[in-house]
Amino acid sequence: MKKLEEYVRSIPDFPEPGIIFRDITTILQDADGLQLAIDGIQKSLEGVDYDIVVGPESRGFIFGVPVAYAMHKGFVPIRKKGKLPCKTVSVSYDLEYGSAVLEMHEDAIKPGQKVVIVDDLIATGGTTEAIVKLIEKMGGEVVKICCVMELAGLKGREKLNGYAVDALITYEGK
Amino acid sequence: MKKLEEYVRSIPDFPEPGIIFRDITTILQDADGLQLAIDGIQKSLEGVDYDIVVGPESRGFIFGVPVAYAMHKGFVPIRKKGKLPCKTVSVSYDLEYGSAVLEMHEDAIKPGQKVVIVDDLIATGGTTEAIVKLIEKMGGEVVKICCVMELAGLKGREKLNGYAVDALITYEGK
Repeated sequence: MKKLEEYVRSIPDFPEPGIIFRDITTILQDADGLQLAIDGIQKSLEGVDYDIVVGPESRGFIFGVPVAYAMHKGFVPIRKKGKLPCKTVSVSYDLEYGSAVLEMHEDAIKPGQKVVIVDDLIATGGTTEAIVKLIEKMGGEVVKICCVMELAGLKGREKLNGYAVDALITYEGK
Repeated sequence: MKKLEEYVRSIPDFPEPGIIFRDITTILQDADGLQLAIDGIQKSLEGVDYDIVVGPESRGFIFGVPVAYAMHKGFVPIRKKGKLPCKTVSVSYDLEYGSAVLEMHEDAIKPGQKVVIVDDLIATGGTTEAIVKLIEKMGGEVVKICCVMELAGLKGREKLNGYAVDALITYEGK
């Protein structure tokens, strides 16, 4: 059986020269690849006591919802500004150029709930750090952060110091 | 046990007066609600012979990927223009004001593959019709269209005449 990393398509010089883009659509479009990814995240959650899964738009939805479904948990979507129809709490964070805002429904997480964050990628850790802030602002406790891939060279874990972070695949570079 | 429709939050006059917005986040954030939705879609696929699940960004990801995972199929994401990193095929379709473009990786579906489309909502049917065109352009055969909710008053099924369409919840209005 193939390993999960063999399902990732690496695209050199995308979106700009020197960057290797790691494409997860080739994981998804193969039934075995998709199963490896979701089973892998579930395995990294063995023994973790948690109430709910949170994932950001839109690749966090891809990996987070199947994990929540398979483990009989709820799923809370984090979306870009203006996409959620009810009252939200929001957090802004810095991008390479400018900034962005993420939102969550204000009734989505109850104070004291134990939360797992699922996403496709940890790069600089900026998005994940913003999600952690949003969850904690609502009184939730982040008990684990699971992602499919990590670009270790960008040192995202330093921003997430003190949190349990698991990646199914680690790329040493950027 | 609550019925699936009881998990939907209805928001009057959103995004404009006279429209009732059907919010699915209250399905997702409850483990039982999420299970009802995904199990319901799986049930509507009983006896259907298919190879792969296709879902559009981003609520189609939410419902499509867990179904693909649970039934050991692959999942192909359809995204808005410019989001997919490899060579794509695209289709443009009309919106109320202007138009939009959807894309799929050109190697995502092989000619002759039997495809199920999963999405949250069928309203006017315009987006779903565009997705069908995209799949057929690539040589795929759409064998079923499953959605969580249908707004029957908008007559989306008329645009999808000749295709098997299933909705878990039907609202008579718009």
